Amino acid sequence: MIKKNLCINGKSQMLLVDPDASLADVLREQLKLTGTKIGCGEGQCGACSVIMDGKVIRSCVTKMKRVPDEASVMTIEGIGSPDKLHPIQLAWTVHGGAQCGFCSPGFIMSAKGLLDSNPSPARQDVRDWFQKHRNACRCTGYKPLVDAVMDAARVLRGELSEADLAFKLPADNRIWGSLCPRPSAVDKVTGRTDYGADAGLKMPAGTLRLALVQAKVSHANILSIDTSEAEKMPGVFKVITHKDVKGKNRITGLITFPSNKGDGWDRPILCDEKVFQFGDAIAIVAADTEANARAAADKVRVELEELPAYMSAPAAMAEDAIEIHPGTPNVYFEQKRAKGDDTKPIMDAAAYTVENDYYLQRQPHLTIEPDVGFAYFDETGRLAIHSKSIGLYLHHAMICPGLGVEPEKLRLVQNPSGGTFGYKFSPTMEALLGVAALATGKAVTLKYNYFQHITYTGKRSPFFMHLKYGADKQGKILAMEGDWVVDHGPYSEFGDLLTLRGAQFIGAGYGIANIRGVGKTVCTNHAWGSAFRAYGSPQSLLASESLIDELAVKMGMDPLELRYLNVYRPGDTTPTGQTPDAYSLPEMLDKLRPLYKAALDRAHRESTAEKKKGVGISIGVYGCGLDGPDSSEIAVELTPDGVILSSTWEDHGQGADSGALGTCHEGLRPLGLRPDQIRLVMNDMATAPNSGPAGGSRSQVMTGNAIKNGCDMLLNAMRKSDGTYRSFAEMKAENIPLKYSGKWTASMCTACDENSQGAPFPVYMYGVFMAEVTVDTTTGKTMVDKFTVFADAGSINNKLVVDGQIYGGVAQGIGLALSEDFEDLSRHINMIGCGLPYIKDIPDAIDIHYVQTPREYGPFGAAGAGELPLTSTHVTVINAIANATGVRITHLPALPEKVLAGIQGKK
Amino acid sequence: MIKKNLCINGKSQMLLVDPDASLADVLREQLKLTGTKIGCGEGQCGACSVIMDGKVIRSCVTKMKRVPDEASVMTIEGIGSPDKLHPIQLAWTVHGGAQCGFCSPGFIMSAKGLLDSNPSPARQDVRDWFQKHRNACRCTGYKPLVDAVMDAARVLRGELSEADLAFKLPADNRIWGSLCPRPSAVDKVTGRTDYGADAGLKMPAGTLRLALVQAKVSHANILSIDTSEAEKMPGVFKVITHKDVKGKNRITGLITFPSNKGDGWDRPILCDEKVFQFGDAIAIVAADTEANARAAADKVRVELEELPAYMSAPAAMAEDAIEIHPGTPNVYFEQKRAKGDDTKPIMDAAAYTVENDYYLQRQPHLTIEPDVGFAYFDETGRLAIHSKSIGLYLHHAMICPGLGVEPEKLRLVQNPSGGTFGYKFSPTMEALLGVAALATGKAVTLKYNYFQHITYTGKRSPFFMHLKYGADKQGKILAMEGDWVVDHGPYSEFGDLLTLRGAQFIGAGYGIANIRGVGKTVCTNHAWGSAFRAYGSPQSLLASESLIDELAVKMGMDPLELRYLNVYRPGDTTPTGQTPDAYSLPEMLDKLRPLYKAALDRAHRESTAEKKKGVGISIGVYGCGLDGPDSSEIAVELTPDGVILSSTWEDHGQGADSGALGTCHEGLRPLGLRPDQIRLVMNDMATAPNSGPAGGSRSQVMTGNAIKNGCDMLLNAMRKSDGTYRSFAEMKAENIPLKYSGKWTASMCTACDENSQGAPFPVYMYGVFMAEVTVDTTTGKTMVDKFTVFADAGSINNKLVVDGQIYGGVAQGIGLALSEDFEDLSRHINMIGCGLPYIKDIPDAIDIHYVQTPREYGPFGAAGAGELPLTSTHVTVINAIANATGVRITHLPALPEKVLAGIQGKK
Repeated sequence: MIKKNLCINGKSQMLLVDPDASLADVLREQLKLTGTKIGCGEGQCGACSVIMDGKVIRSCVTKMKRVPDEASVMTIEGIGSPDKLHPIQLAWTVHGGAQCGFCSPGFIMSAKGLLDSNPSPARQDVRDWFQKHRNACRCTGYKPLVDAVMDAARVLRGELSEADLAFKLPADNRIWGSLCPRPSAVDKVTGRTDYGADAGLKMPAGTLRLALVQAKVSHANILSIDTSEAEKMPGVFKVITHKDVKGKNRITGLITFPSNKGDGWDRPILCDEKVFQFGDAIAIVAADTEANARAAADKVRVELEELPAYMSAPAAMAEDAIEIHPGTPNVYFEQKRAKGDDTKPIMDAAAYTVENDYYLQRQPHLTIEPDVGFAYFDETGRLAIHSKSIGLYLHHAMICPGLGVEPEKLRLVQNPSGGTFGYKFSPTMEALLGVAALATGKAVTLKYNYFQHITYTGKRSPFFMHLKYGADKQGKILAMEGDWVVDHGPYSEFGDLLTLRGAQFIGAGYGIANIRGVGKTVCTNHAWGSAFRAYGSPQSLLASESLIDELAVKMGMDPLELRYLNVYRPGDTTPTGQTPDAYSLPEMLDKLRPLYKAALDRAHRESTAEKKKGVGISIGVYGCGLDGPDSSEIAVELTPDGVILSSTWEDHGQGADSGALGTCHEGLRPLGLRPDQIRLVMNDMATAPNSGPAGGSRSQVMTGNAIKNGCDMLLNAMRKSDGTYRSFAEMKAENIPLKYSGKWTASMCTACDENSQGAPFPVYMYGVFMAEVTVDTTTGKTMVDKFTVFADAGSINNKLVVDGQIYGGVAQGIGLALSEDFEDLSRHINMIGCGLPYIKDIPDAIDIHYVQTPREYGPFGAAGAGELPLTSTHVTVINAIANATGVRITHLPALPEKVLAGIQGKK
Repeated sequence: MIKKNLCINGKSQMLLVDPDASLADVLREQLKLTGTKIGCGEGQCGACSVIMDGKVIRSCVTKMKRVPDEASVMTIEGIGSPDKLHPIQLAWTVHGGAQCGFCSPGFIMSAKGLLDSNPSPARQDVRDWFQKHRNACRCTGYKPLVDAVMDAARVLRGELSEADLAFKLPADNRIWGSLCPRPSAVDKVTGRTDYGADAGLKMPAGTLRLALVQAKVSHANILSIDTSEAEKMPGVFKVITHKDVKGKNRITGLITFPSNKGDGWDRPILCDEKVFQFGDAIAIVAADTEANARAAADKVRVELEELPAYMSAPAAMAEDAIEIHPGTPNVYFEQKRAKGDDTKPIMDAAAYTVENDYYLQRQPHLTIEPDVGFAYFDETGRLAIHSKSIGLYLHHAMICPGLGVEPEKLRLVQNPSGGTFGYKFSPTMEALLGVAALATGKAVTLKYNYFQHITYTGKRSPFFMHLKYGADKQGKILAMEGDWVVDHGPYSEFGDLLTLRGAQFIGAGYGIANIRGVGKTVCTNHAWGSAFRAYGSPQSLLASESLIDELAVKMGMDPLELRYLNVYRPGDTTPTGQTPDAYSLPEMLDKLRPLYKAALDRAHRESTAEKKKGVGISIGVYGCGLDGPDSSEIAVELTPDGVILSSTWEDHGQGADSGALGTCHEGLRPLGLRPDQIRLVMNDMATAPNSGPAGGSRSQVMTGNAIKNGCDMLLNAMRKSDGTYRSFAEMKAENIPLKYSGKWTASMCTACDENSQGAPFPVYMYGVFMAEVTVDTTTGKTMVDKFTVFADAGSINNKLVVDGQIYGGVAQGIGLALSEDFEDLSRHINMIGCGLPYIKDIPDAIDIHYVQTPREYGPFGAAGAGELPLTSTHVTVINAIANATGVRITHLPALPEKVLAGIQGKK
């Protein structure tokens, strides 16, 4: 141990530290300066950036022995506070720089380092700086961050006042549709938000720290587990195996269609008989420190009989493949789609047919925050589990029987979460935390390092698709057919539902009368399939939005005009036979047309043999809601100071707080409340009702309607006969109830039938995208130069939030198109290996245009928004590459070597 | 565990807490908001005061289950920071409110609570508030704190600007003699100073937490120690007994006169064969948490054969008393004093003789911070022990052989310390920490609760004294004789030296030519004797300053005039035959005389039968230095920014930083440095040379001279032929050494001989004190209404520091006179039980007058200062009680029942 005298945020601080400890760990664990976050833990994300002796450094890879004695360290806690934000922090809030907010402290410290050394940077300087300092953001698409730095620089140079930069409440006190910063923004930009690892560090002494013993192979029988050596290791409190699990030791998939050949009880909490995928948890060590727990976990001996690992759907479907879950076939679910007439005769007669095979890869979510959580027993003796869950009541039902606790004895709470993008629609560590708390009787914490986070959380399930269009001479698509195979990994949860999404979204956006095909869900030994933003649609639209371009090429027709001919118009129905809720695609294509023509001209003009430029477009469609009559519940209560709104509108980082606040504020407009008079009580089963999970862009619609309903009930109760409203005191005096349960059910919806026909969603989102790219023909590398979005997400609740969703979704689409993958367990194990886009991989030019068609079933006309920008933005890029080079990439990602091979094949 | 949402310093904070945990522990341990201090841990000292929902509360006794959900908690961290001090914090720095600083955060939060509710308090309101909120301070005597609150209120009311309140560097840049706030003040008043418990909490995960198994009897043979059950307790890493100690398992008393019948090796680190006093450490449990360590410590079974406990010197001196340390007589040291002629014939012939017996009690130090420390192995493999040690090199030598480590493998460091007043002149837990670190190979921390702190640290050794004066008709004292017995507890360290102090200070201040007597050091089973401010003199002067008043009464002479006749004048020598270094006592008495007469008149006027008023005076004398040729060493080094001054001028809270800074700044005046250009590197054996222990008011003289010497050497090296000084660059260019070792030895001193004759100290401090008291004759309770001090501590380095020393010393003198004791192990176990003075026990009227006689051997004329105000301030009060009531209290403290019995006896 070494004694270091440091000056931390201006405070002289004597510290005793392990010379090999990182500065980040010392700041966080020893000083509880948890504003500095640890993302990747290996210097790839910059979440841990601090300024040491004037230089921006990544504190997670800065060992204490390399920190000079008397060094001056500045962290996010040292530059501003809520009542005195640093201009960078202020700019971050007004530009929506903090979505999940996990990267914000690191970015802000990095930006401070930049502005300290260069007070007048150009936008490109800012981008260069963040690229050089490896500041990674997964939420914002980077553009808002550059906007924020430019404005902060103006303030610091005295060209813009803080008052002018700050958001001002409109004169009519209406925040609906405004750029009001999210309520959580100030805490996020000042480093005050306690994410799971932060709160875990602040738990009482005696809290046990957990480490997992995990499978290092992908498929095996377990012969024996020997914990004896581990039990003797220092600080070990208990080594927990499946034998210590009191319940069924299984996480249930819950929503299983009757035709599913599995029963949903296929995912062990702690492996007992078999290992189903790499990383599967076999034992848990509970110890006094994380280091002791991890050291002891290394000493657990697991004897395995390795089995053939089926790392993709075709392998698991092979004749000789054994059943991964004995008794259940590897192909355990099939979903037919059949709309209109038999397609075979139509295809045979069609003027044009076109068909192809497509593969969308196992996209990793790459949240900057790794998975984390903790558990304890609350004051009523309930087992309380805090995690990043975006489905509290859902996960409650999924893990309760496996743990063996009575439902009323289990409480789930969501911590502030550093991004999920859907992976937390699956339980991850919740059940492990529960098992450990129950087995030890103690409070426990568990945090994954980034390797564990990547290898042992769910991923987007790859689709193998074949698709065929038949069109008439004008290009009107008469029929669509094709099958799709879903590689869902070893655990069945929501695998059937995801397969249905193929039926709902392959070909979505076009009024195709006749459709045939079958989707299959396949069990494999690669990472289990979990939700990911736009769940099922990036796969589906890769096929249908690529193939329409191929049809256009075949016909010699402009792809925009071909789409324009086919998009939904009154009289058309969706692939499930539902009448669309809005017909804004033609309008958006009309508006895009001049921009598109100009872009084509520009690309043509600027293209060279080495740098080929191209333009691609696509349309995107996605539904808002779980299938069928989805519902939500909230509670709203009048208080002396305003109202309390309680809900489980869970937050990925998308802005659940803004969503809830904006809807409630609009719902109670007659009361003239200031936004800060609405107190949000969120995401704790002990204090908030079941608003359903935060997935499928359902929250703004379902929970938004429930909020509106609750607000209406409260207003009705408060309204006097003269149309004015009772005060709190008057309500009390008249003994009128103060608290109202707001509920809403999408009763106008019907679940899809065996032919995938039905009206599954009350509201849809529509978009039209254009990408302008440059392909380096010598390397095959694609750069997206500009991205244009037309979006119809209905009436907009909070424009800052929706802008942010679109910027961030576009960035994820570009990553999906060009670099992201989780396939190779030796290579796809960190952010860079997995192809996370950094700032220079994403264009600074992202233009958003809104068409706001108010939705009948959206609260105040709003649809969801978060998933739209990842429906087909990747295909837009793929289509642009084809436009630039003639190379059609059908198996994503479009890595340079693939594009280069295509280019060379053409020569 | 319960989930609480709190708003802490404006930050919304979700917390998981044990419902029975205190708010203080949660703030400190879970959030590392260590600005909130824990002193007594039972609501008696207010160090933990915070503001909750607008009310000042003591957070150490506020259980989390009683903290309302959504409560707003404000701590010292939330009201100001170094660059933006709250006006109360600013006022605290300029009024010297923070000496050790441990109580400052609690006082400041309490004061904020007052000023929030009453912006214009009168001084009495402030005193009432602090009394009501039980804010205890042991350093400042409270008056400066009231001054600070009054000024802060003026600032808050807009009547005084912060700029006007703040200290301004004089135009001549000279801080010597100024009111410059101590360098550490800002960190102390903002809660940023990490004391031992704070730094211990910030050590890395895996640091073991220790708990002691302690004796619950005072004297016993140990038959067996069974650790088996404790070893099985949760979280236990190791249970350590004497068998694990590698060295001699003894702390050596080191400085042992040859005539001492013991060998100094009498204090076990961990008891092996015997228990010598209540609290003796028998085993140490090292565990993951303090709670687990304490729980396991309760499970260690110790089988004892109880022996007769000798709880006072007379008991241990009884004929039938067994030897506490077998082989060494309980009376193990005798010190003769013999000056001039045989006193018997002089007494026989004297016009007046007077004699009496006196007892000064076992005064507890009652620091607000309990004892605390930690140990680890540093980067060179050295065992590093951090504690409150005020004698780093001294303790190193005392514990090294006992631990069994090579001297170069042991490093001691002093933590910022929340008061010691001398108890840390003894090793306390250093060796225990060392044993535990060596036995576990791990970093370890140990903190005592207040009960442990009181019962298992050293105390002021009681003196049993008989004294006789013989005087001529005019009152000139011709002879003094009498013996004294020192109850030193079971451990011999410095017991012989302390006994010598009796010879040096009984009768000090008076030119008495003929002296006889013998002092005896006695081993007992009560608390071991350790240093306490003014070491030996409060005992000595209780006898000689009481007896002179008794002589005055007998003669019918005014006690001031009797003193005036006898105090040192040229030609007189001290009791050890040394020529005094200053003759300022007559001048001070001359200056006191008119005030004294006015006080007597006032007392006479205002006295009633129920409230009798009286005036007492005394003189105080104390030496600066260890006996004989004491020495010190420092280092001073030129840097590009200024200089670095390294020393082990340890800090009790007295202001070592100010002492070192002021002396160095004065020593380097020709360089024109700003004070902040002098960087202090202090109190770590790895980085600073041996400046000797901080005791006996030696530091300003010994280390001050060493600093002056170092500065002279540096100036000589820097001086050019034209009288100007080389810059850093010039020194480098000319290759002139930059670093100089400054040394000083009091070579003019000689240790006392067997007759206690010698010149032990190069410099003395002199004072004259007056107390005005009111005695309630119905209860016997004494209140000190006013206290006046005349002090000659030489030329004053920092007036704010010396003022503070005097205010605080007077308060401790009043406590010593009236209430403080550590005798009854069932009652004297907390602050209130031990008689700690609260604000209303100390007068707001304390007037200080300085006579600054520059000392020949003091650096820039300075003497020490810290011990003067506790030499005889207690006797002043005792004399005032006698003046008011005629009741002479000879056995302290003068508890109301004792005074009442005296009054009733007179009736």
